[in-house]
Amino acid sequence: MKLLEEKILRDGKIGAGDVLKVDSFLNHQMDVAFLCELGKEIKRLYADEPITRILTIEASGIGIACLTAQYFDVPVVFAKKTKTNNIYADVYTSKVESYTHQKTYDIVVSKEFLKQGDRVLIIDDFLAKGSALTALISLVRDAGAEVVGAGIVIEKAYQSGGERVRAQGIRVESLARIQEMDISNGIIFCE
Amino acid sequence: MKLLEEKILRDGKIGAGDVLKVDSFLNHQMDVAFLCELGKEIKRLYADEPITRILTIEASGIGIACLTAQYFDVPVVFAKKTKTNNIYADVYTSKVESYTHQKTYDIVVSKEFLKQGDRVLIIDDFLAKGSALTALISLVRDAGAEVVGAGIVIEKAYQSGGERVRAQGIRVESLARIQEMDISNGIIFCE
Repeated sequence: MKLLEEKILRDGKIGAGDVLKVDSFLNHQMDVAFLCELGKEIKRLYADEPITRILTIEASGIGIACLTAQYFDVPVVFAKKTKTNNIYADVYTSKVESYTHQKTYDIVVSKEFLKQGDRVLIIDDFLAKGSALTALISLVRDAGAEVVGAGIVIEKAYQSGGERVRAQGIRVESLARIQEMDISNGIIFCE
Repeated sequence: MKLLEEKILRDGKIGAGDVLKVDSFLNHQMDVAFLCELGKEIKRLYADEPITRILTIEASGIGIACLTAQYFDVPVVFAKKTKTNNIYADVYTSKVESYTHQKTYDIVVSKEFLKQGDRVLIIDDFLAKGSALTALISLVRDAGAEVVGAGIVIEKAYQSGGERVRAQGIRVESLARIQEMDISNGIIFCE
């Protein structure tokens, strides 16, 4: 998506440790009017698919998920991060490995809010190694619901996550796909 | 706000430890169309005030803040919770006491996203003892910005938070104010 690529080139900053800082518009400060445009694009991509629920993960997925959900007219459910290792009876649970923070944590969704028969669109701000996305897919399947696909704002396509998920036959639409990124050469998007 | 009070009575559940569970529409699953109506009401209440930024706190404030921000046409900034006690030079920081989880944590906002001259509306899902709201007000003041007011979805008016903040001369608008709540008698709203 041209609009997003231009925004990333203008406002994104490459930091140490393969970090792309887009916290001026996506995940600390949120440019709400701009995120609405991304939401409309996700709706356009999935226009032909019946969707019953949007699933995301706290915290930085929530804004884009809510703004996108308006165009689908469906509720958003966000998976909560938890440090307890207790498996409660009333939640679905899954593990996420965070490479940025070098730790593993559990995510949970109440069984009330993911049901058999649901057709779920997963929304998140970033896709890199795919650990969060894989964990969200696992929650949906545990519920007996169907993953219609994922709508991702920025995919680091040089990492393996997106390809691994697509290889499972799951549709993944990323609005910007980064092919290469480093401080000296800047950001190159996939064609 | 009648619409919200009816929703709380219909879908809210009173839990042990003074908990009001509204996770079917507000803070786990989010009824986005409904939250947009709340956002429009917050805009109506603050229609006469110039606002330059909306500030909230992760995670459950983000959805209502983003949906509300559309009607003000301003960006949202969310304060991040952190467990580190390091004070970084590039962030404003403040302490929140969580009574639900019985711990204290720091919240931070990058100095890039709160500036002198900003007129800030604080949005959150709940106001009870007021620890999060007080911490957000402190961040705004550290930045030399002005707190125009707060827009809260549900205030537990039988707790001291709202009154304490109003006593400082800060405008606090809560869309539903609970006067009394217990499992046997249910929920009674303020007149």
